[in-house]
Amino acid sequence: MRILLTNDDGINAPGLIALADELKRVGELLIVAPERERSGSGHAITHDAPLRVKEVRLNHVLLGYATTGTTVDAVKLGLEVLSKARIDWIVSGINAGGNIGIDLFYSGTVSGAIEGTINGYPAMAFSLYRGNQDRQNLRFRGAAQIAREIFEAVVERGLPRWTCLNVNIPNLERDAIAGIEITEQALGHYADAFELRTDPRGFDYYWMKGQRVSPNSKQRDDAQAIEERKVTITPIQIDLTDFDLLERMRRWNLRLSER
Amino acid sequence: MRILLTNDDGINAPGLIALADELKRVGELLIVAPERERSGSGHAITHDAPLRVKEVRLNHVLLGYATTGTTVDAVKLGLEVLSKARIDWIVSGINAGGNIGIDLFYSGTVSGAIEGTINGYPAMAFSLYRGNQDRQNLRFRGAAQIAREIFEAVVERGLPRWTCLNVNIPNLERDAIAGIEITEQALGHYADAFELRTDPRGFDYYWMKGQRVSPNSKQRDDAQAIEERKVTITPIQIDLTDFDLLERMRRWNLRLSER
Repeated sequence: MRILLTNDDGINAPGLIALADELKRVGELLIVAPERERSGSGHAITHDAPLRVKEVRLNHVLLGYATTGTTVDAVKLGLEVLSKARIDWIVSGINAGGNIGIDLFYSGTVSGAIEGTINGYPAMAFSLYRGNQDRQNLRFRGAAQIAREIFEAVVERGLPRWTCLNVNIPNLERDAIAGIEITEQALGHYADAFELRTDPRGFDYYWMKGQRVSPNSKQRDDAQAIEERKVTITPIQIDLTDFDLLERMRRWNLRLSER
Repeated sequence: MRILLTNDDGINAPGLIALADELKRVGELLIVAPERERSGSGHAITHDAPLRVKEVRLNHVLLGYATTGTTVDAVKLGLEVLSKARIDWIVSGINAGGNIGIDLFYSGTVSGAIEGTINGYPAMAFSLYRGNQDRQNLRFRGAAQIAREIFEAVVERGLPRWTCLNVNIPNLERDAIAGIEITEQALGHYADAFELRTDPRGFDYYWMKGQRVSPNSKQRDDAQAIEERKVTITPIQIDLTDFDLLERMRRWNLRLSER
């Protein structure tokens, strides 16, 4: 099995290295990732600037390829330029931070999986959810073991053509994790509250700083389950059509006016 | 009615100016847009760098606000920082180029509408579909009239909480347009075919160049309808959960192994 591995924290991120160490036990890896952190880059592509690709070595052994582009660029480059043989699965992560609910729109990690699915490859994104814990002591090694187990279980069963998986793993000792739950995507938004500052020259600028707000609008979503120390697996689809509204709008009989 | 208008071609783009000229007939506008073209930026946000905001004037009159950030940043800044009163609708466009099918993942224009909906505002994205026509002679004025008519019709009926509209208008004389159709999002992918070049110093780089491929996998999607010279309106939802797979996966009974 050949796996294309990417992320959005950059090719040297510990979450990617930990996941690579586990996944190479079950398949041959092609690692293609941004050369620097590109978190929050969503599904951005680089079509208005040249893309560079560099070999990256770890302890003198080829680790993979770093690109000046985004995670989505990395997936495209991996599939179109760098792979020497057919890729079987695309895996993205492990992200240093959760991607819960509407986070998937902003997340480069999840977009890596979505891009894989768009191109016809089964794909999964893994993120490490730390909640209000600080950025130190991220348990990537334990999370990578869990990610590999889930990956193997999903590979065995397969995924439908137009759906990928968004997996979040709590940043906890394995014994403290309360199991695996298949969840819906939480709805919600970020209360953004930009912070206004003034630079040394006297000009204003803003820092974005946000708190995700996920009202309990659903029976059982990833935002609820992750707070209960569950590993969450949310199946997300590429077809965003709202079929209910589509049917209703057809009855509106919209027409262009005569002029 | 107060409308927040944005785009991803930049605040000086003719598509935004044409749409503003029409929309100011039906509401008060707050224009917030990227200072430069940010097409292909998807749902990217700027949370790792400062954001600047500048007033932009056209013929000595305040047009709106330009930000160093993306379209999604512009929507957030508009809602959180720049609006002096409650916004009623968010409109994005008119994009210089279609956003058909899976384009919505890459499109800053559509992401502007999606960000509005995430934050609880009804929202629509407008794009001008030119197909294989060249970039000259884009009929923004005629498209903006059609966009305003559609906007008014939708405002009258309203949108559900978690769905926005992706509208594509053919780049044709009004008489040549074959009507309005409510469509599904086409599935498909880009055949990317990067072009390899060598810079003057002898180093390789790649240009992304892609053709959208939308197989006729659906009964009636936006890719089909736009080729038949229809205005397409695709309702797109923020909840990406694949409920069919969710039900199936729950029966898989995935568990963490004992260790």
